[in-house]
Amino acid sequence: MKIAVYPGSFDPITNGHIDIITRASRLVDKLIVAVVKNPSKTPLFTAGERMEMLNESVKNIKNVKTDNFMGLLVDFLKKHKADIIVKGLRPVSDFEFEYQMALMNRKLDNKMDTIFLMTSNEYAFVSSSSVREIACLGGNIKGLVPPYVEKRLKQKYASLSVEKKRQQIEVD
Amino acid sequence: MKIAVYPGSFDPITNGHIDIITRASRLVDKLIVAVVKNPSKTPLFTAGERMEMLNESVKNIKNVKTDNFMGLLVDFLKKHKADIIVKGLRPVSDFEFEYQMALMNRKLDNKMDTIFLMTSNEYAFVSSSSVREIACLGGNIKGLVPPYVEKRLKQKYASLSVEKKRQQIEVD
Amino acid sequence: MKIAVYPGSFDPITNGHIDIITRASRLVDKLIVAVVKNPSKTPLFTAGERMEMLNESVKNIKNVKTDNFMGLLVDFLKKHKADIIVKGLRPVSDFEFEYQMALMNRKLDNKMDTIFLMTSNEYAFVSSSSVREIACLGGNIKGLVPPYVEKRLKQKYASLSVEKKRQQIEVD
Amino acid sequence: MKIAVYPGSFDPITNGHIDIITRASRLVDKLIVAVVKNPSKTPLFTAGERMEMLNESVKNIKNVKTDNFMGLLVDFLKKHKADIIVKGLRPVSDFEFEYQMALMNRKLDNKMDTIFLMTSNEYAFVSSSSVREIACLGGNIKGLVPPYVEKRLKQKYASLSVEKKRQQIEVD
Amino acid sequence: MKIAVYPGSFDPITNGHIDIITRASRLVDKLIVAVVKNPSKTPLFTAGERMEMLNESVKNIKNVKTDNFMGLLVDFLKKHKADIIVKGLRPVSDFEFEYQMALMNRKLDNKMDTIFLMTSNEYAFVSSSSVREIACLGGNIKGLVPPYVEKRLKQKYASLSVEKKRQQIEVD
Amino acid sequence: MKIAVYPGSFDPITNGHIDIITRASRLVDKLIVAVVKNPSKTPLFTAGERMEMLNESVKNIKNVKTDNFMGLLVDFLKKHKADIIVKGLRPVSDFEFEYQMALMNRKLDNKMDTIFLMTSNEYAFVSSSSVREIACLGGNIKGLVPPYVEKRLKQKYASLSVEKKRQQIEVD
Repeated sequence: MKIAVYPGSFDPITNGHIDIITRASRLVDKLIVAVVKNPSKTPLFTAGERMEMLNESVKNIKNVKTDNFMGLLVDFLKKHKADIIVKGLRPVSDFEFEYQMALMNRKLDNKMDTIFLMTSNEYAFVSSSSVREIACLGGNIKGLVPPYVEKRLKQKYASLSVEKKRQQIEVD
Repeated sequence: MKIAVYPGSFDPITNGHIDIITRASRLVDKLIVAVVKNPSKTPLFTAGERMEMLNESVKNIKNVKTDNFMGLLVDFLKKHKADIIVKGLRPVSDFEFEYQMALMNRKLDNKMDTIFLMTSNEYAFVSSSSVREIACLGGNIKGLVPPYVEKRLKQKYASLSVEKKRQQIEVD
Repeated sequence: MKIAVYPGSFDPITNGHIDIITRASRLVDKLIVAVVKNPSKTPLFTAGERMEMLNESVKNIKNVKTDNFMGLLVDFLKKHKADIIVKGLRPVSDFEFEYQMALMNRKLDNKMDTIFLMTSNEYAFVSSSSVREIACLGGNIKGLVPPYVEKRLKQKYASLSVEKKRQQIEVD
Repeated sequence: MKIAVYPGSFDPITNGHIDIITRASRLVDKLIVAVVKNPSKTPLFTAGERMEMLNESVKNIKNVKTDNFMGLLVDFLKKHKADIIVKGLRPVSDFEFEYQMALMNRKLDNKMDTIFLMTSNEYAFVSSSSVREIACLGGNIKGLVPPYVEKRLKQKYASLSVEKKRQQIEVD
Repeated sequence: MKIAVYPGSFDPITNGHIDIITRASRLVDKLIVAVVKNPSKTPLFTAGERMEMLNESVKNIKNVKTDNFMGLLVDFLKKHKADIIVKGLRPVSDFEFEYQMALMNRKLDNKMDTIFLMTSNEYAFVSSSSVREIACLGGNIKGLVPPYVEKRLKQKYASLSVEKKRQQIEVD
Repeated sequence: MKIAVYPGSFDPITNGHIDIITRASRLVDKLIVAVVKNPSKTPLFTAGERMEMLNESVKNIKNVKTDNFMGLLVDFLKKHKADIIVKGLRPVSDFEFEYQMALMNRKLDNKMDTIFLMTSNEYAFVSSSSVREIACLGGNIKGLVPPYVEKRLKQKYASLSVEKKRQQIEVD
């Protein structure tokens, strides 16, 4: 049985991620989508919120499970008896960094292998950070994230708005 | 009438920017150089100071106007009835990020288009951040920025110097 | 009056080229699409055939003219009193080469400037050579080139087929 | 059952290819390694010789089959009821071209997907063409190709040597 | 006498750095490895600790000296009568940034030149930051850094552990 | 004594090459500039002509010798007791290929090392092939090559002109 892990911050999950999850799920017997609780970043959404949006987004793909972890990716794979890491590549900007990560992961455990899938052309420019920035500035993110995530982003920025607005006003 | 917007942080404006402004101004009827007041960055100069240096630098180019904004670039273009975004490309390091931004901007408003101009070869290595770093460390930035900006950078770092120096001393 | 030149082999013209022509035509007063008769390449279609397909493809865009030339691009621009070179950039593989060409053209005549437009995302993977290869192998090129060009490619490969097939059979 | 195709010229097969085959064979139920008989290139070895070296190299990997084809890759996949294309990526020089190919293949048949595996670090600089060039100039290719292929390359260049040597002497 | 400077943060020194130092030391008469006390970053190790690990690592390479500085690299070279800057390049991710830095340094003092050496293939994926991240998460860094540095990293993270762990727990 | 080899086709030598030779000559005790007689390319100038232009161009740089060879670069280095390969890097297009070559050369003989120097910014866009193309089309190459080479290129293309012109006329 082929078990693969697709790790990410998913802050929030985008349609580009869902495209990768859908296609990766066809390649393996079980795909674990794993929210990385990376302590060095301050995410917009808590790990709990990110899990919730992820679960909502993949509930209809039958061989997909979700989880979250803090620590080394290779340890997470061992725990789940997985030996495939899935990564999405966009035409620009991802390859070099991902290559370095994949080499390092192979060094840490050479029984594991990384497979790269191309992000669908129509999501080539979509990233969690660009989605956050547009939502924060009041732009339209329809089609970039699932409707459920769109709603959550609006709520999140609404709840932050007073403090955020103050931060955002640059006194000259 | 072709109206274009050249957005940037201009913290501070460099001779590389002025080269792009000069050449872009010949391609369109009206060029609006726009200082982005991006709330997520802490600039060295306030938006007011950046506008002042920009105005001083472009005062002799007749079809250039200046402005500043906070928010989505595409909204700023709409407000000014502009439909061209101008970006400078240096031989290294800019292309992939700019491409992604341009795709996203087209997604947000497909009536707008981004045109890329190449930064002149002699300014290929000049960026606001490298200029700031050299000035901060007491290096010579003549020829990288207009004389007026050179003076302002010296004043800025002089005014920050006591506190900065303390920050800069690493106690072992 | 802004006059620009969009040079290329157009062997044959693709929907990616037509996308660039359409968008470039909105930026300038007059756009000259120029078939380069580069003696060092053996094109599939003659310059005459390439002009014919180009003319058919742009006949409805009012400020677009077509022409062809052999020689230096900068001389062609001078002849037409143009001072803008238009180039399309795809997310992969074009940028570095185009940058070098643009620097060289500026060196040859510094009154001329190159502007880069992004090829639309949906044509990011379309090139004349990939279209030729797919057509040659009998694949479906619908949507990659205009219908007229699709027909011409089929005729061309049909007319070559006996000789080509012989060439293509590798005797082991 | 997951069936994947790993296409290539394999002119000749290198240890880098064998590394990819070995790792890809663990990811799928059946892996078909396919020699592409591309009519537009003149290979050093005939398709028959390339098949022979390939067969010798993979005979001990149980779920690997070999085949060869001329035509569109997506048609070859259909014939074998495969829906996964495997490609090896080296840290330099492969990504952009492969990305474009993968997008085109998805356009030709969107039920098929390309997965990228990283070539092992120690073979990062090994390609069929560099192996051919070194062998042709009498250099040592031990460790870059299997011993059997090493022998075949020596024989090939020995058999070509009189004519080749004449070609290689540049008369000044 | 050829004097070269190899600058870096060395936070901490890795086997990739030691590989560059070893090879660069053979190219010049004297190589000064210089710890940059860059005030804008918060290093894991103090400059004193970084110097100590560096000294331990290079003590057996006879024409290597160590030093540290704060300020412009070109001023540091002048002080040591050096005119060569040594930089290591990894196959991915370093080139573009280093190129820009090298051009800027040449602009600041055109008597100085930068030479680039390739990081050995086996350390292509090793960087101080990846080493820090793996050590922090409890992974095995044997073979990536000298044993002495491995021990120091463990001690450092042990000493930080209570506070770090608290920081690392993300409350959902 | 540090002996380095700077190999190339030099078809013809450009000011970019001379810039690299000048700077490399300061780094080593002896620099051998070596014309590669690569049998697989048809150069414009014979190896004898390329040597002649090279000799003329470097006659005033005292520690530079010239030579030519056919075969493996590492064998040529051994013959000259050299252990340094010098390569010029332009901001675009050279790095990835050169990296792969350098890794292969290190594999062939690990006592040899490649150092990369940056081509001066003002020659960033100059290559032998672009110079040949411009000269062939009657463009001005002043400042891209030494005056002596400029004259030789004109003579060469004049001598080829009747036959070339015939080749260059594309019959539609």
